[in-house]
Amino acid sequence: MSGAAPSRPGFVAIVGAGPGDPGLVTVRALELVRSCEVLVYDRLVSPELVAEADGAELVARETLTQDEINELLVHHGLQGRRVVRLKGGDPFVFGRGGEEVEALVAAGIPHEVVPGVSNLTAVPALAGIPLTHRGTAAEVTIVTGTSGDGDDLDYDRLAASPGTLVIFMGLRRLGHIADGLILAGRSFDEPAAVISRASLPDQRVVVATLSTIADAASDLASPAMAIVGAVAELAWNQRPLAAGLV
Amino acid sequence: MSGAAPSRPGFVAIVGAGPGDPGLVTVRALELVRSCEVLVYDRLVSPELVAEADGAELVARETLTQDEINELLVHHGLQGRRVVRLKGGDPFVFGRGGEEVEALVAAGIPHEVVPGVSNLTAVPALAGIPLTHRGTAAEVTIVTGTSGDGDDLDYDRLAASPGTLVIFMGLRRLGHIADGLILAGRSFDEPAAVISRASLPDQRVVVATLSTIADAASDLASPAMAIVGAVAELAWNQRPLAAGLV
Repeated sequence: MSGAAPSRPGFVAIVGAGPGDPGLVTVRALELVRSCEVLVYDRLVSPELVAEADGAELVARETLTQDEINELLVHHGLQGRRVVRLKGGDPFVFGRGGEEVEALVAAGIPHEVVPGVSNLTAVPALAGIPLTHRGTAAEVTIVTGTSGDGDDLDYDRLAASPGTLVIFMGLRRLGHIADGLILAGRSFDEPAAVISRASLPDQRVVVATLSTIADAASDLASPAMAIVGAVAELAWNQRPLAAGLV
Repeated sequence: MSGAAPSRPGFVAIVGAGPGDPGLVTVRALELVRSCEVLVYDRLVSPELVAEADGAELVARETLTQDEINELLVHHGLQGRRVVRLKGGDPFVFGRGGEEVEALVAAGIPHEVVPGVSNLTAVPALAGIPLTHRGTAAEVTIVTGTSGDGDDLDYDRLAASPGTLVIFMGLRRLGHIADGLILAGRSFDEPAAVISRASLPDQRVVVATLSTIADAASDLASPAMAIVGAVAELAWNQRPLAAGLV
């Protein structure tokens, strides 16, 4: 080892980039991206936003494992650098930001978490679908799966949940999940919507029923989210924002 | 009636302002606030952000009913004005933004929904609590109540939900809700946290157990959110951001 620890402490910000449109990044996130020395970013982060990290060392996540990312953040932090870890959506919603913070805390590196606009809330809003709506839905259940194919889901409990279901996983298994919900008691003609590439210029929204949604959405591109429940047919807004970065 | 409809169509943006710190507003939201002619804003929106609507007519929501707000937005929209309806957090998460959009759609007024950083996701993140965390919690249930006192909650179902509970209602009834959860089978010594005034300079975080959290948090100020589950004791980050508006 060639020297002492750097005199200046490093700093790592775990930052949410929002759903895709760079206009949906926060003012604080943009400020941090513009002033960082190292930017580690996920695949779904917009190129316009990455381009704002002028002069920074850019690290695309791509094939790095979560452990490798944690090590990378700690490494640069220990070197005294200002690091931004930019994640799609919000860093703490199904985003494994917690594991990154744990690694930084263990290494004694100062950090900040900057919440972002979560896909969980923004994607339905961008399609004009309120997850809760007076007289229609007062509760939201978020469906995710660890097995990737929906086999680990508790369909009986999900079918019994009142209100809106948000299916926050790949579209590939949507038909399988919809069948499971119908078999467990959700109505086959309950409204269901899929929102593809929310906030991006090619955003698309398809509204159908629980029994037809998988076919209706079969040609949509990822990332996508499905919503099941009476609110799904509200879907007022099928245009993307396309706001861009000012 | 004194004249024809204005030649220029109005435009109403339903915009989320984030959890409080003006640095957590989106770039798009700030752009819309800075260029609007009428700003209708909620009590929890930061004064710094309202001040950015330079020259606009300012309408504090205060005592207006939801129907009166809907009428106000339609009125200004029909007059051809650029209106921003600025709501705390995200406009579509327990925010009644859906009712405002319905009124605009019914009146044929062009509108846009700009998602914000939701309190639901940001408040836990600002306290360093990930709602989901590998090996700890894979599911999140959001608890809200329409009666205001928690008597309408289905405690058996909530107690049986695996993963994190987010209690998204007034702290006044936290003891009542915690008792209901324990009686229905959640463990009395399960970790629980309350985050008060997240993102603001006087943010506070208290971590206790389900049986002690109501007492431990009794002197905290609103707005506040409670989190029940193993992730609650992670609470890495007890400082506010205090980023401000750049």
